[in-house]
Amino acid sequence: MSKKQKNREKAVVLVSGGLDSATVLAMAREQGHDCYAMSFDYGQRHRCELDAARRVASHAGVVEHKLIRMNLDSIGGSALTDTAIEVPEAGGEGIPVTYVPARNTVFLSFALGWAEVLGARAIFIGVNAVDYSGYPDCRPEYIAAFETMANLATKAAVEGQTIQIRTPLIHLGKDAIIREGLRLGVDYASTVSCYQPDDEGRACGQCDACRLRADGFDQAGIDDPTRYQ
Amino acid sequence: MSKKQKNREKAVVLVSGGLDSATVLAMAREQGHDCYAMSFDYGQRHRCELDAARRVASHAGVVEHKLIRMNLDSIGGSALTDTAIEVPEAGGEGIPVTYVPARNTVFLSFALGWAEVLGARAIFIGVNAVDYSGYPDCRPEYIAAFETMANLATKAAVEGQTIQIRTPLIHLGKDAIIREGLRLGVDYASTVSCYQPDDEGRACGQCDACRLRADGFDQAGIDDPTRYQ
Repeated sequence: MSKKQKNREKAVVLVSGGLDSATVLAMAREQGHDCYAMSFDYGQRHRCELDAARRVASHAGVVEHKLIRMNLDSIGGSALTDTAIEVPEAGGEGIPVTYVPARNTVFLSFALGWAEVLGARAIFIGVNAVDYSGYPDCRPEYIAAFETMANLATKAAVEGQTIQIRTPLIHLGKDAIIREGLRLGVDYASTVSCYQPDDEGRACGQCDACRLRADGFDQAGIDDPTRYQ
Repeated sequence: MSKKQKNREKAVVLVSGGLDSATVLAMAREQGHDCYAMSFDYGQRHRCELDAARRVASHAGVVEHKLIRMNLDSIGGSALTDTAIEVPEAGGEGIPVTYVPARNTVFLSFALGWAEVLGARAIFIGVNAVDYSGYPDCRPEYIAAFETMANLATKAAVEGQTIQIRTPLIHLGKDAIIREGLRLGVDYASTVSCYQPDDEGRACGQCDACRLRADGFDQAGIDDPTRYQ
């Protein structure tokens, strides 16, 4: 660690390889944090997002990038972890079948454990309650409740070291997220948002995640660097 | 599933292979639940507890026993997941190094996901705030905060299907737990409590978990079936 970094605060940043978390990572860094990126191999069908996560973390110069492996797919209940359930095209009503039961809760729990070991006081997550798919674990009230729980859960909390769950994107539209990311030098060409990309990370252009991403670039008036199949 | 079981409520029960969770499983069953046992291979040093978990789940006649594998040990920070940190003998002060950062939060998060897929309305966990090691994630206020968070986290909750985190042992002494378990037919000889048992599941007799267990049998006036090294 360089001298320059010594007085910076540590933060754990959840990095999926998608557009949102790449932006959050750049924001956390700009806010003066030493960033510890965390990604998950949970049996998702779109594992090339893990390659994207590696590129994003490397580009942002994180101190460490930790990959957690777990068989969350053995629980089932989602099109993202069960290949028997088809990924729907964009535009359906209600919470879509791409919702993964308790996914953000599981992810944040691991981040909480790592934050405690590192002595980090913040966990950054790229949830968004504007241009999103209606997932319950992206809402502000959920995040607030997780933070309350987290501050009762750990030895660090008992000893007075509180943790914040930081969600800098939560009230931003996708276009605003993209503009902010470009200002901070995020390379969106290296991110993957699609729920069912091919092996080379090229997007389907049909799913909810593809629609939200394409609309974001469109509304921001920025050329979309996404590679389509 | 037999006809008799059709109208019973489903419950996810966290089963570690230890004395407490074996008792909780028997209690959940007696309370009329169809039980779905969940155990975790998280890189713990005492993996023979997983064999104990299998025996306990089988003995209790669970509907299904799911094992979640994950590299929680890659986070470190505990004598139970890092062999470089020695398991202390019983009787130290403060929260001991056997505390695993965010462990119950991670476990309950997976249970929450499975409960949602199953349509279960209850998660049972054998935390105890009387004869315990002072772990923060065993306290009633932590459990209450997790339950609040859980009821904002899932699609099921948004649709009105609330979940309860049930902790029937939380205010019981170890001796009362043992008496209750024996009444319900728990075979404690097949459980493993020790933090560092040998490969055959025989206990060290020195660690905090061994001390709490031995004191419990002693106070209950019951012969201790624990096999020691």
